[in-house]
Amino acid sequence: MTPLFARVAIVGVGLIGSSLLRVLRREGMARTLVAADASEAVRRRTEELGLADVVLESAGEAADGADLVILCTPVGTFAALGAEVGQRLAPGAILSDVGSVKGAAMRALAPHVPAHAHLIPAHPVAGTENSGPDAGFAALFEGRWCIITPPADADPAAVERVAELWRRVGSNVETMDAGHHDKVLAITSHLPHLIAYTIVGTATDLEETTQSEVIKFSAGGFRDFTRIAASDPIMWRDIFLANREAVLEMAQRLTEDLTMLQRAIRWGEGETLEALFRRTRDVRRGVIDAKQA
Amino acid sequence: MTPLFARVAIVGVGLIGSSLLRVLRREGMARTLVAADASEAVRRRTEELGLADVVLESAGEAADGADLVILCTPVGTFAALGAEVGQRLAPGAILSDVGSVKGAAMRALAPHVPAHAHLIPAHPVAGTENSGPDAGFAALFEGRWCIITPPADADPAAVERVAELWRRVGSNVETMDAGHHDKVLAITSHLPHLIAYTIVGTATDLEETTQSEVIKFSAGGFRDFTRIAASDPIMWRDIFLANREAVLEMAQRLTEDLTMLQRAIRWGEGETLEALFRRTRDVRRGVIDAKQA
Repeated sequence: MTPLFARVAIVGVGLIGSSLLRVLRREGMARTLVAADASEAVRRRTEELGLADVVLESAGEAADGADLVILCTPVGTFAALGAEVGQRLAPGAILSDVGSVKGAAMRALAPHVPAHAHLIPAHPVAGTENSGPDAGFAALFEGRWCIITPPADADPAAVERVAELWRRVGSNVETMDAGHHDKVLAITSHLPHLIAYTIVGTATDLEETTQSEVIKFSAGGFRDFTRIAASDPIMWRDIFLANREAVLEMAQRLTEDLTMLQRAIRWGEGETLEALFRRTRDVRRGVIDAKQA
Repeated sequence: MTPLFARVAIVGVGLIGSSLLRVLRREGMARTLVAADASEAVRRRTEELGLADVVLESAGEAADGADLVILCTPVGTFAALGAEVGQRLAPGAILSDVGSVKGAAMRALAPHVPAHAHLIPAHPVAGTENSGPDAGFAALFEGRWCIITPPADADPAAVERVAELWRRVGSNVETMDAGHHDKVLAITSHLPHLIAYTIVGTATDLEETTQSEVIKFSAGGFRDFTRIAASDPIMWRDIFLANREAVLEMAQRLTEDLTMLQRAIRWGEGETLEALFRRTRDVRRGVIDAKQA
């Protein structure tokens, strides 16, 4: 198969960036694979792992001559990276990203993309709690969804090239507007992470229970929350700040629902609890049927 | 090895009961394995799977002549089962259970245990979201902790026999008082389940987001919550009601901590978020080091 792109620049070689490099290489989707990372240690590791043909410090240099640049760094870096990369985008080049918040990503990047280039943001809904170039693997995106959120005036051909890339790495592709994406992800990803971080913090703040007890007896459910709460601190800080309104709205709804359950527990209303627990069990069946389990 | 017990009666052939039957058989720990379950369908399946030597409907009959009876049913059944089983316990026999709430378990069972028998409650901190006799497996307890909460006047030899059983099925054994157990489990197991049930309910109640979207894009974190929220509805209803005070206390603490994070998000206090997220990441390392991941 002819490579889909001549030169792809991956900016940020973390879990997602290094997984992309691996699968782009495996599928022969770029004639030249360029990786850029601000961290010297990450660049060295990227070279040792042989993840890219060219490894650079500067995102701007990586963008030179690329027909596709994908930002795989925390959303908080997008404004500065956009300024650095935007002016160097070649005619017809596509700037994309993998950020978990699309409204903020577009607001940060759009002003820097020249009229001769395309901004096509995307979000692969896939990940693990691990970070860094060693954490990535080529199969990360297989069977997962990638959501593309093209600006209203996006060039359909550019959207299709990005969609084709994600399909070739094994993902299902869906297109929606950035605002809707941010609401859906607020509940399916951002709130779960916020709660996991919260509960792990709460558990380790208790006076009567030592941290070692909490860890020892974590197999009763807590350990799953510790896994989620091990996700990259900077990336998640940026996500919550960038999707502030939707996350706060979902947190408020959760608090209301939790308060209702607390009341049911206090008053011994077993039927209320059981009815909810039967309903949530059905949702799990849906997740399994959708092959997202 | 000589069997540890002559006749062991497992009351309730669900995930835990059927796992116990499987591993007790594998380890040759009982001369006779008796299973009792109120459900005809479960009894039939128990027979088909060959999990026990004798399969009965009546817990009382199962207790006849047993030197160990283990209740593996929801905590809410313990008062009635205690009344049925207690009077039939042979001299020296041990009544135990695997309930997730030990204070309530002891209050429900203790009045029914005659002076010639022993009440030794235990709680294997292990499980999956699946239920029923087919869900069990012999390795479920391997490397997990089993907490024994003997009454203050418990016979040390009886405690040791129960501890030995749990060690032989592969668990680490710890002894503590029921009240402390219930506080530790409230945070490491009960609150995580309550939150998972809540968030899955919240997610499926949204107006703008369809249930199918929530399911489709669940790989961003939500799916882990759906797994936990698929746990047995009756068992968990009973746990929350039986451990009411500790669960409400933990839920209140969580709400306070969540409110603090909501405020940090609203005011853009990135350092507060990042500091917590670094701390929770360390807790995950602890869980991994403790081999409970």
